[in-house]
Amino acid sequence: MPQDTICAVSTAPGRGGIAVIRVSGPEAVTITDRIFRSPNGKPLAEAQANTAHYGSITDEKGHALDDVVATLFVAPHSFTGENTVEISCHGSTYIQQQIIALLLRQGCRLATPGEFTRRAFTNGKLDLSQAEAVADLIASTSAASHRLAIQQMRGGFSRELARLREQLLTFVSLVELELDFSEEEVEFADRQKLTELAREIERVIKRLSDSFSLGNAIKNGVPTAIIGETNAGKSTLLNRLVKEDRALVSDIHGTTRDVIEDTVVLQGITFRFIDTAGIRETHDTIESMGIERTFQKLDQASIVIWLIDATHAPQEVEELSRQILPRCHGKHLIIAFNKVDKIDDATRQQLTQLYDRLTREMTDTAMTFLSASHNQNVDALESMLVDTVNLPQAGENDVIVTNARHYEALIHAHDAILRTLDGLQTGLSGDFLAQDIRECMHYLGEITGQISTDEILGTIFSKFCIGK
Amino acid sequence: MPQDTICAVSTAPGRGGIAVIRVSGPEAVTITDRIFRSPNGKPLAEAQANTAHYGSITDEKGHALDDVVATLFVAPHSFTGENTVEISCHGSTYIQQQIIALLLRQGCRLATPGEFTRRAFTNGKLDLSQAEAVADLIASTSAASHRLAIQQMRGGFSRELARLREQLLTFVSLVELELDFSEEEVEFADRQKLTELAREIERVIKRLSDSFSLGNAIKNGVPTAIIGETNAGKSTLLNRLVKEDRALVSDIHGTTRDVIEDTVVLQGITFRFIDTAGIRETHDTIESMGIERTFQKLDQASIVIWLIDATHAPQEVEELSRQILPRCHGKHLIIAFNKVDKIDDATRQQLTQLYDRLTREMTDTAMTFLSASHNQNVDALESMLVDTVNLPQAGENDVIVTNARHYEALIHAHDAILRTLDGLQTGLSGDFLAQDIRECMHYLGEITGQISTDEILGTIFSKFCIGK
Repeated sequence: MPQDTICAVSTAPGRGGIAVIRVSGPEAVTITDRIFRSPNGKPLAEAQANTAHYGSITDEKGHALDDVVATLFVAPHSFTGENTVEISCHGSTYIQQQIIALLLRQGCRLATPGEFTRRAFTNGKLDLSQAEAVADLIASTSAASHRLAIQQMRGGFSRELARLREQLLTFVSLVELELDFSEEEVEFADRQKLTELAREIERVIKRLSDSFSLGNAIKNGVPTAIIGETNAGKSTLLNRLVKEDRALVSDIHGTTRDVIEDTVVLQGITFRFIDTAGIRETHDTIESMGIERTFQKLDQASIVIWLIDATHAPQEVEELSRQILPRCHGKHLIIAFNKVDKIDDATRQQLTQLYDRLTREMTDTAMTFLSASHNQNVDALESMLVDTVNLPQAGENDVIVTNARHYEALIHAHDAILRTLDGLQTGLSGDFLAQDIRECMHYLGEITGQISTDEILGTIFSKFCIGK
Repeated sequence: MPQDTICAVSTAPGRGGIAVIRVSGPEAVTITDRIFRSPNGKPLAEAQANTAHYGSITDEKGHALDDVVATLFVAPHSFTGENTVEISCHGSTYIQQQIIALLLRQGCRLATPGEFTRRAFTNGKLDLSQAEAVADLIASTSAASHRLAIQQMRGGFSRELARLREQLLTFVSLVELELDFSEEEVEFADRQKLTELAREIERVIKRLSDSFSLGNAIKNGVPTAIIGETNAGKSTLLNRLVKEDRALVSDIHGTTRDVIEDTVVLQGITFRFIDTAGIRETHDTIESMGIERTFQKLDQASIVIWLIDATHAPQEVEELSRQILPRCHGKHLIIAFNKVDKIDDATRQQLTQLYDRLTREMTDTAMTFLSASHNQNVDALESMLVDTVNLPQAGENDVIVTNARHYEALIHAHDAILRTLDGLQTGLSGDFLAQDIRECMHYLGEITGQISTDEILGTIFSKFCIGK
C-alpha cells in the first residue's frame, strides 16, 4: 500500500527553547527540500543519511520563517522505517504552526495520533506490544512504570510470547499431522508429553495474567487509602509524603510534572491516594450513611493505612474497628499510631497489645508509630508501603503485564489452553484439540500484532499523542 | 575563561512524543559518551560532526533509561560555538528528569535561563541584539512580531547600528586627530560636513527610536479599547473578533496556544483589548466615579472603538460624547454603529451626518456600520483596525525597534548626538565634542553588546527560558 507523507510537532505542546517537527514518508525529503535552504545550497536529497544540516525554512513567497537544523534519516534506518526528516526549529508556538501549515501546503498530511509509531509497526520495526510500550514509556512517571515500559519496548514480553507460540505451533503441527493420517489412527504426538507441554504453557500464561494486578498498580499507581478520624493527622501525613516526593524532583528545573492530586512516588513506585475525606464531616453522626460511603471507598484500595491518634487510640479503635477491619481482608493493612511524641513508653506498650489483639485473626498487617507533624518515622511507613508492593528486584528479566488489552487476550488464551488440557484428558479428537490450540495461539498473536485488525490498531494508536 | 559543560531540556516542558536535551561545553562529548551506548559500540568522540546516532542512555548501574538519537555538533560549528550533543529522547517527564539527573552526576551543570544563547553571544556567534531576538522569536505569537524578531535575529538591526557606529568613528577620529595638533589650531574635519553627517545620524537614530511605539505595539499587542453602553453589543463584537482569530489556528492540532484573554491576532497583528467592562455596571449612575474610571482607561489605548447601538444612537452619543471624545486626541478613533440590520436607510443617513458633526474637529477618525450578532461587516472593522497600525509593507528591510532596552539606549544616543550638533553650532572645543560622540557610540554599542556588563547580560538572559 503506497503511503502518503505525514508531519507533526513531536515535542510537547506550547512554548520551549526548541521544538521538533517530524516529517515521514516517501516524499519526506522531497517536500522538505522545497522549504529548506541550506547556506551551501545543497538539497537534503544529496545529503548522507543520519546527518544534521543548518539552514532556513522559507515560505512560498521567499520569506524566512525560521533558522533550523534538519536531520535526515533514510529508509529503512529510521524510527518509522520510512524516509524521515526531523526539523529542529525555535520553540515558538507560532513558528511551529507556520512550519506545519507550510508542510501541509507542500503536500504533507497531518499525522494522526500515534501514526509514526503505527508506521514503525507496519514496517516491522516494532511489534504491537512494543509499540504500545512506546506510549507507556512516554506516560511513565515513576521508576517502576518506566522500567516495565522500557522492558516491554525492548521486546521482553514479545520474546516470552514468541517462545510460547513456537511451542504451541510444534504441538498443533503434530496434532494436525495426525489428522492427515486419520484413517490410519496413528498418534504422532505423545499425549503424555503434550499434556506436560500444555501444563507448562498454562502455567506461564497464568503467571503472566496474574502479574497484571501488580503491573496495573505500577502503571496507574497502587490504590492506597489513609483512613482515620479528623484529628488523627491524615492530611499532615499526606503532605509529608507528597513533600518527600517533591523534594526528589524539585532540583531539576526546566521540566514540569503532571501533578495529580494525592499521587506520590515513593522509591520509584507510584501510590494513588483514594479520597476518603468524607469521614471528617460526618464525625458527629458516626452511624450515618455518609461515613458508610467513606468506608465503602476502602474497597478500591489495595493498601489501607489506618491512622490513629495515639493519645486517643482506644476510643478511636472502639468507634471505627467494626467498620474498618472487615473491609481489609485481602488487602494490606497498616495501622499507624500518630503523635507518638505525646505518649509515654507505657502507652506505647499498650498500643502494641491493642494492635496484636485487633489483628489476631488477620494476615498481612503491619504496625508503626510515627509523628507526622514532627516528621518522625514517616520514612519507616514509606518503606512499609514500598515493601507491600513487593516489586520483583531482579527485575529486568521478569515479564510483568501492564496493559489491559494484553490481560484480556491472556485470559482468553488461558481459557483456550485449559480447554486443550481438558480435551487431552478426555481424549478429545485431534481436530477439536487443534482448534483450541489455534485459538490460544490467536490470542497470543493479538498481543504482538501478528493477528490484528484495523479496528484494534485504530483503538490502540488513537490513545497516543500526536507526533509520536 | 574556561567554561564548564551545561545541560538542560530544550523542548517545551511537559509530556510530548519526544524531548530534546542539550549538552554544551568542552566536556559535552566526553560526558555524553559515559552514558550513551551505540549498538556498534563506537563513541561519539570518534564520530563526524553533524551526525545523528541511535543508541541507548544507560545509568551507572547499567540500567537502560531510554533509546535515543544523539546528534553531535563540533565547535565552533554549533549554536553555542562549543561542542554540543543534542539527545532526542522519549518525551516522558520522568525520562527527561532521569537523563538530566544522570548528566549532572556525570559532571554537567544545569544551564541557567538563556545560558546556551549567552554562550553563543560570548563566542561571537550572535551579537546582543540578535541574542535578544532569539527570545522574542520564541515568544512571538503573530506574523508581525515574528517578522520583526526574525529580522532582528538575522542581524538587520545590527547592520544598521554598525553602519552608524562606523560613521561616528570616522567623525570622532578626525576630531581627535585635531586634538593631537591642537597647538597648531588646524581643522581636519570640515565643520560643515561634520554637521551634515551628525544631522543624518540624528535622523536615523530618531527614526529608530520613533519606531519603538510601533514595534512595542506589534510585540505586546496594539492596545485597543471597545467602549460603549451595555446594550451596544461590545462582548458580541469581541467574541466575533476572537472567533475569527481562533478559526485560523484551530485546524492545526498538536499545538496549544497561550490564550490571553481578549487578545486577538488579526491579519498577523496582535490587538490587546483593554478591559473597559466597568461601564456596564454603572450605567444607571452615569456621572459616578465608576464610569469615570472606565473612561480613564481609554488613556492606555492607542485605538478606541466606540460601539454605538444604531437604534439608540442620538441618545448614546448625547450621554457619552463629552466623556469619550476629549480623551481620543492622538488616538485612532473608530465609531462603529452596531445593529445595522435594525435600521433603515434614512437613519443610516442621519447617523453618517451625526458622525461628521461629532468628528468635525478631530483627525484620525473612521466610521463603520456593522452587525456583530449577524456577523455583518465585521471584516470591514477588522481591516480598519489593521490599517490604523500601518505596518510597513515592504518590511524585510525596515528596521523597527521592539525592545525597551534598545529604545532606552537609543534615547541616550539621541541626546548625545543632539549635544554634538549643538556643540558643532556653538563651536565647542574638539575634546568636548569628541566626548559627546564617544557617548553616542557607547550607547549604540550597548545595544549590540560591544559594550556590555555582567549585570546587563544577567538581566537580559534571565528572561529566557531554560534550555535556550
